[in-house]
Amino acid sequence: MNLTITDVRLTPILVADPPLLNTQGVHQPYTPRLIVEVVTADGITGVGETYGDTKYLELARPFAEKLKGRQVSDLNGLFAIADEVSVDSSRVENQVDVGGLRGVQTADKLRLSVVSGFEVACLDALGKALGLPVHALLGGKVRDAVEYSAYLFYRWADHPDGVACEKDDWGAALDPPGVVEQARLFKERYGFTSFKLKGGVFPPDEEIAAVRALAQAFPGHPLRLDPNGAWSVETSLKVAQEVGDVLEYLEDPALGTPAMAEVSAATGVPLATNMCVTTFAEIKEAFTRDAVQVVLSDHHYWGGLRNTQQLAAICRTFGVGVSMHSNTHLGISLAAMTHVAATVPNLHHACDSHYPWQSEDVLSARLTFDGGKVAVSDAPGLGVELDRAKLGFLHQRWLDDDGSLRERDDAAAMRVAEPGWVTPAVPRW
Amino acid sequence: MNLTITDVRLTPILVADPPLLNTQGVHQPYTPRLIVEVVTADGITGVGETYGDTKYLELARPFAEKLKGRQVSDLNGLFAIADEVSVDSSRVENQVDVGGLRGVQTADKLRLSVVSGFEVACLDALGKALGLPVHALLGGKVRDAVEYSAYLFYRWADHPDGVACEKDDWGAALDPPGVVEQARLFKERYGFTSFKLKGGVFPPDEEIAAVRALAQAFPGHPLRLDPNGAWSVETSLKVAQEVGDVLEYLEDPALGTPAMAEVSAATGVPLATNMCVTTFAEIKEAFTRDAVQVVLSDHHYWGGLRNTQQLAAICRTFGVGVSMHSNTHLGISLAAMTHVAATVPNLHHACDSHYPWQSEDVLSARLTFDGGKVAVSDAPGLGVELDRAKLGFLHQRWLDDDGSLRERDDAAAMRVAEPGWVTPAVPRW
Repeated sequence: MNLTITDVRLTPILVADPPLLNTQGVHQPYTPRLIVEVVTADGITGVGETYGDTKYLELARPFAEKLKGRQVSDLNGLFAIADEVSVDSSRVENQVDVGGLRGVQTADKLRLSVVSGFEVACLDALGKALGLPVHALLGGKVRDAVEYSAYLFYRWADHPDGVACEKDDWGAALDPPGVVEQARLFKERYGFTSFKLKGGVFPPDEEIAAVRALAQAFPGHPLRLDPNGAWSVETSLKVAQEVGDVLEYLEDPALGTPAMAEVSAATGVPLATNMCVTTFAEIKEAFTRDAVQVVLSDHHYWGGLRNTQQLAAICRTFGVGVSMHSNTHLGISLAAMTHVAATVPNLHHACDSHYPWQSEDVLSARLTFDGGKVAVSDAPGLGVELDRAKLGFLHQRWLDDDGSLRERDDAAAMRVAEPGWVTPAVPRW
Repeated sequence: MNLTITDVRLTPILVADPPLLNTQGVHQPYTPRLIVEVVTADGITGVGETYGDTKYLELARPFAEKLKGRQVSDLNGLFAIADEVSVDSSRVENQVDVGGLRGVQTADKLRLSVVSGFEVACLDALGKALGLPVHALLGGKVRDAVEYSAYLFYRWADHPDGVACEKDDWGAALDPPGVVEQARLFKERYGFTSFKLKGGVFPPDEEIAAVRALAQAFPGHPLRLDPNGAWSVETSLKVAQEVGDVLEYLEDPALGTPAMAEVSAATGVPLATNMCVTTFAEIKEAFTRDAVQVVLSDHHYWGGLRNTQQLAAICRTFGVGVSMHSNTHLGISLAAMTHVAATVPNLHHACDSHYPWQSEDVLSARLTFDGGKVAVSDAPGLGVELDRAKLGFLHQRWLDDDGSLRERDDAAAMRVAEPGWVTPAVPRW
């Protein structure tokens, strides 16, 4: 058995995305992702997936070169490589990460997001080489299936007229009845029993009405509302008071740890975040100030599956809950999320996933939700198979793009429909 | 490859221990340890080592039964087994752990100490089955050798007259010249360049004099002093003031987080601990109060190598240093310590080890220190080989014992020399 990495392939793709609305704008018709393949001397290929915007690609390319010749089992060494790869800070520092809606961008966050794609690919290859599923490489699953929540979005039926895009059959959801109908479809199609609404799109009263409508239509089901930090502390407290009785948690009502701590101190509604705690460096202040009660981990930007386990251990130690954030992603990442989630004993909330919104994938067979859950694969590696024809098709779309969609920009996508749109100042309400 | 555990062997042993002094008394001439062997369906055997007192054995036996039939890779599942195995709390709760000098005993700590023996054995077996060293199962080494410090003890030349024991050639060390001579021998024999003195034995002024003598004899070498919580806050601050300039850190000067926090707030000398932070449950208070600057991890009582990595990640996140505690142990544990230490990026202090004090071992070949370091093995598993004749010899000693040495009791051992000895009240000075 030779675990030396002999080849690394990077394939940027553009994947269809519906017109999902958030406080910054709307998803583009196509979202960039990067597919990573790591090949060992024995010819075993492992796959990974991460963000695909240019700034990630620019970092992934030298990273891939440095990876060759190393052992696929040398996962701790990936962080040393990351330290060696330089980032043009002027391009990332102090910009808000639009695609991720995950706080302020830094060079370190960018590096870790790139590491995660390689780490998952290495784990997949290592598992295949050893005949072990990825969860076994992470210490073994503690559950046989991982629960996900329905990720409800305000959305248009279609992207604006004249925009090249794929169609779907979900229809529009722009008011409480539309949101309830979308939730009903999610439950019917995937069996989800908990619901998260992406908020920050309409004035809070409209979103409060949507949450109350969901509570009435699905009594007893866990509900969440996430305005991506669009509200002031006062508005956050008002919403907490009005719908706190039906919320499992309120996600990032206000932006930043100080504001979250203020909200937290004044309400009994648990606060979750994937915006003020997005790196290990942000944990100490947030936990010391009791600013959040649930951290939504995301293996992409925390630096991989093993870092996600470390984050979960920190949360457990400090009595903070843990669940999982999602951004537009494909089946490789859903498989990775499921493997790591299966190993986290203190995962007491259903994970988020955009996967049902993605009509396209690079896998031979899509992953499925049964009763809202994804079964944990016991096949070697991630247990997924790359479909090269599909990968090639989505890569060709990336090649054919004139560059306008290679950087995810929800505000730019919004300007196609509303030419005067600018990213709203925060707090928006 | 069949990773199912088909057999588990538990072998309690008594291993020779020199008359090393601490604040509670003196090491017995023989110390109990437990050797764990896990055998897979393919006939691969993995070895582990942990505490061997009766209360550990009573827990290890039902644990071993429950382990059979499980996968050797199911490391997360070990904690579920631990939860199922009941502990007679009346025997452990609220007693001070004499052998470990590691704070107050609890059922949970006892369980984790037992888990660690099985976890290391499973990792050894898994590594052998997969052809990978244990460090690779932990994500890969980030250094090729792990540095240890010389563990200096006040000691007698021999155990009291008439006590059955093994002899060694170290001689007595009961004053500053004796301590310096012991350090010189440690440096000569093993190449250690940092020195830790176990204190709390003599009045602080004598130990201050010993530290100053070490500083004079070995200028620039990192020094540590560890009285195991024997001092009041006032005494701790006095010692910090008198030798703080030559100390790398002061270890557990006072007992408990509140006292340590008080010392920490009033001195610039870093404080280390293996007494007030010994479980994940104790971390939050200690870190929030900035009571300690270095945590001395110990895979035995933190619950294994993977928990040790989690502890290190928590320390890194909160800006707390990490090093490694040691109790009387053999080569299996030294190998385990070395593997995990090799994977912790933020290990910036030499680890403690009693190993040089142990003239006996259960390995075919003893591990060696070169320039104070143990090389990280790249052989499958831990890279050690059990010597069944040696194991049998030490087990026979355990069988032959009338029970008086099967429970480590440093105060009882002291009473052989000083019949009126009682464990001193804390703070002693």
